[in-house]
Amino acid sequence: MLIDPGYIRDRIRTVADWPIAGVQFRDITPLLQDPKTFRVLVDCFVHRYMDMNVDVVAGVDARGFILGAVVAYELNRGFVPVRKKGKLPFHTVAEEYELEYGSATVELHSDAIVPGQRVLLIDDLVATGGTMIAAAKLIRKLGGEVFEAAAIVDLPELGGSKLVREQGIPLFTVCDFSGH
Amino acid sequence: MLIDPGYIRDRIRTVADWPIAGVQFRDITPLLQDPKTFRVLVDCFVHRYMDMNVDVVAGVDARGFILGAVVAYELNRGFVPVRKKGKLPFHTVAEEYELEYGSATVELHSDAIVPGQRVLLIDDLVATGGTMIAAAKLIRKLGGEVFEAAAIVDLPELGGSKLVREQGIPLFTVCDFSGH
Repeated sequence: MLIDPGYIRDRIRTVADWPIAGVQFRDITPLLQDPKTFRVLVDCFVHRYMDMNVDVVAGVDARGFILGAVVAYELNRGFVPVRKKGKLPFHTVAEEYELEYGSATVELHSDAIVPGQRVLLIDDLVATGGTMIAAAKLIRKLGGEVFEAAAIVDLPELGGSKLVREQGIPLFTVCDFSGH
Repeated sequence: MLIDPGYIRDRIRTVADWPIAGVQFRDITPLLQDPKTFRVLVDCFVHRYMDMNVDVVAGVDARGFILGAVVAYELNRGFVPVRKKGKLPFHTVAEEYELEYGSATVELHSDAIVPGQRVLLIDDLVATGGTMIAAAKLIRKLGGEVFEAAAIVDLPELGGSKLVREQGIPLFTVCDFSGH
């Protein structure tokens, strides 16, 4: 990476015991709020993908929309939202995945991806990897190739980044934190 | 507006009877998915705001994140997310508002706005105006000035755009639809 990842990492806010006791939540909102940091953050992704033949950028509901939309715009590509269940009005494909307690479902419009398209999948953070893997499965159902997934933060101790890569999805993250 | 609003309006997809019978849902995802339309859409807002002394851009969870983040980036400003209840990890201010049945709450980090900042508030669509007005109240609680609210679509028959303006908030929308 051309940009020092420490510049981004140092500006992430850690909120202790949120949403539950024992969790160190990595809050990316300070990265977005400061104009220079926001620009540098986007550049981390634009530098990487501007010459990689990205056909379309998919962003995961909801924080993945922020970075995903800007990267799509900067690459002169379209943006498709991967949404939580019940939010997309047209024909959809759906994928359920397991949470610690219960399950969740993500959806994608059936016409969001053209078969053969090279899709860059963006979220803010990789924790257990469940959402990212489910999103990738949706893209593959429509015939798209998830040529890479990308996020700002990896929490490697939660094992998600390993699981994502085991699905045959290359993964790029700017920085990581242990001690989640 | 320098760009023909018909270019945007013609590319919005209307989904009949969604989410309930009788509603004509205006689906903006085709605007995002096509690279040229996405760029032209963003330009509608950038042309308007690039010389208007915007200090910070606030976007409303979740579709408002998409346009809001890109406009903030293009203006070289920071982006702050107005979120649904329980999503922001740091100290927050909250505002409850009425829905047709029941109520909802939006939140903003207490340090998201510096008193005196001129805030551009962005969502995708103005229907009843409830979310946008609640978001504006949060910004004002923190001492910010909502110098304008902006959205892609106005549904004037639902009365929201009138209510927003009655709150002293100038409102810019690219196009409108009747028959919601």
